[in-house]
Amino acid sequence: MPTDTFAPAMEQLPLILVTNDDGIFAPGIRTLAEEMKAYGRVMVVAPDKPQSAMGHAITIHSFLRLQSVDLMDGVEAWSCSGTPVDCVKLAIYKLLGGNKPDLLVSGVNHGANISINVLYSGTMSAAVEGAMEGIPSIGFSLMDHAIEADFSQVRPVIRSVVGNTLKHGMAPGTCLNVNVPRNDGMPLAGMRVCRQAKANWEDEFETRLDPGNKEYYWLRGEFKSEDQGHDTDVYAVNNRYVSIVPTQYDMTAHHSIATLNTWDHALG
Amino acid sequence: MPTDTFAPAMEQLPLILVTNDDGIFAPGIRTLAEEMKAYGRVMVVAPDKPQSAMGHAITIHSFLRLQSVDLMDGVEAWSCSGTPVDCVKLAIYKLLGGNKPDLLVSGVNHGANISINVLYSGTMSAAVEGAMEGIPSIGFSLMDHAIEADFSQVRPVIRSVVGNTLKHGMAPGTCLNVNVPRNDGMPLAGMRVCRQAKANWEDEFETRLDPGNKEYYWLRGEFKSEDQGHDTDVYAVNNRYVSIVPTQYDMTAHHSIATLNTWDHALG
Repeated sequence: MPTDTFAPAMEQLPLILVTNDDGIFAPGIRTLAEEMKAYGRVMVVAPDKPQSAMGHAITIHSFLRLQSVDLMDGVEAWSCSGTPVDCVKLAIYKLLGGNKPDLLVSGVNHGANISINVLYSGTMSAAVEGAMEGIPSIGFSLMDHAIEADFSQVRPVIRSVVGNTLKHGMAPGTCLNVNVPRNDGMPLAGMRVCRQAKANWEDEFETRLDPGNKEYYWLRGEFKSEDQGHDTDVYAVNNRYVSIVPTQYDMTAHHSIATLNTWDHALG
Repeated sequence: MPTDTFAPAMEQLPLILVTNDDGIFAPGIRTLAEEMKAYGRVMVVAPDKPQSAMGHAITIHSFLRLQSVDLMDGVEAWSCSGTPVDCVKLAIYKLLGGNKPDLLVSGVNHGANISINVLYSGTMSAAVEGAMEGIPSIGFSLMDHAIEADFSQVRPVIRSVVGNTLKHGMAPGTCLNVNVPRNDGMPLAGMRVCRQAKANWEDEFETRLDPGNKEYYWLRGEFKSEDQGHDTDVYAVNNRYVSIVPTQYDMTAHHSIATLNTWDHALG
């Protein structure tokens, strides 16, 4: 049919799944969904409330809900009662009947997900889940927690990384963790492919008393990087570069296997 | 003082932190705490309710509670309102005032944590958090979900792995993921150092209608390993071996960095 000859049918356009951990009404996911409309059909499935720091949690002791949402023109959008990883699973195995999207993008997170924060981050865990499903997947984060954060410098980063991913594909078992420095009025220095910096959280708990004089605790922590390498994500973003860390879900410490095989593993 | 000369003061014994994700009253953590009493002072800090599949989630949008619990003689025990990773943070930064235990053991999980389940598992995420804190850390899992599971074959495994760890130490940035086949009346074949198998969950959602005729969904999945290697945890446990996978929190796909550096990263 002529219409098929001159304009590709909607089904032939890439299907792009968009999720996040800040919730479906966060400005960051709106930015990401808007940008994705240029690349294909867009389906948004995102949490109905903030789910930051939920890591790779999934909901197994309770049920899940999906609710159709009017997010923006030309975009199918669903809010989900669960975690970011639940959103990915529901999108694929409920809404798409087991079919995989061609691309998964997560974010744009309001706040950094550099270094070890990849493990705590719901945004990045959704991208890791995408990688586990064999979907080219990217998590985007802006290093600004504010709800009114300025995402204008993130847009060309999204276009560059998504364009490259659609052109080159992604290594099996990996996804990308992209962090964009906060907009302080100066242009970005560029983009750097990095490794995850070795860092840690020096935590403390603020102790308070409830009206019944029982203690409760609020987690507060300070992020400290002890890694002086110039090839890390922490170094990149501290020098106005966007960091891109290829991230894998194989957590095996392959370099330790030989040493562990020198242990006496006899069972008493 | 004479008593110090002949019996080491309690402070000189190793301090062992015990946690899990099945909750502080699960039989598995009782088994683990009992075994740990032979190695030093034991502190149990574990969730007050089941926290399976909570991954590396932490509580940042709410507060946390700790409650002293009478678990067993000679063991200090606390139940925590949060996730397994919250338990580790509270133990170190609230109960121990920032001091690190000498060893962290998590489990014994009621159910397998082989392959990619390391990412979903609260039990293993607590061990990974321990590694991030520089603590030699081990997660133990029995491949039997039953609350009345038989842990008798796990006890010599715990002694072997803990003994080896106290003797040899652990490579920085790593912890151990130990899975014990279910007791089917036959002896275990031994222990194997393994890599994490490449596998996936083929999920489905069971759709139900609530009394108001609104849909809700229960996650159900089938674990499928496509990895035919004989060096994997899946292969080991399927052949009656205990699997030991050294596990790291550096999720960088180092092998992908060179390829990503061939991309054109110019910002438009």
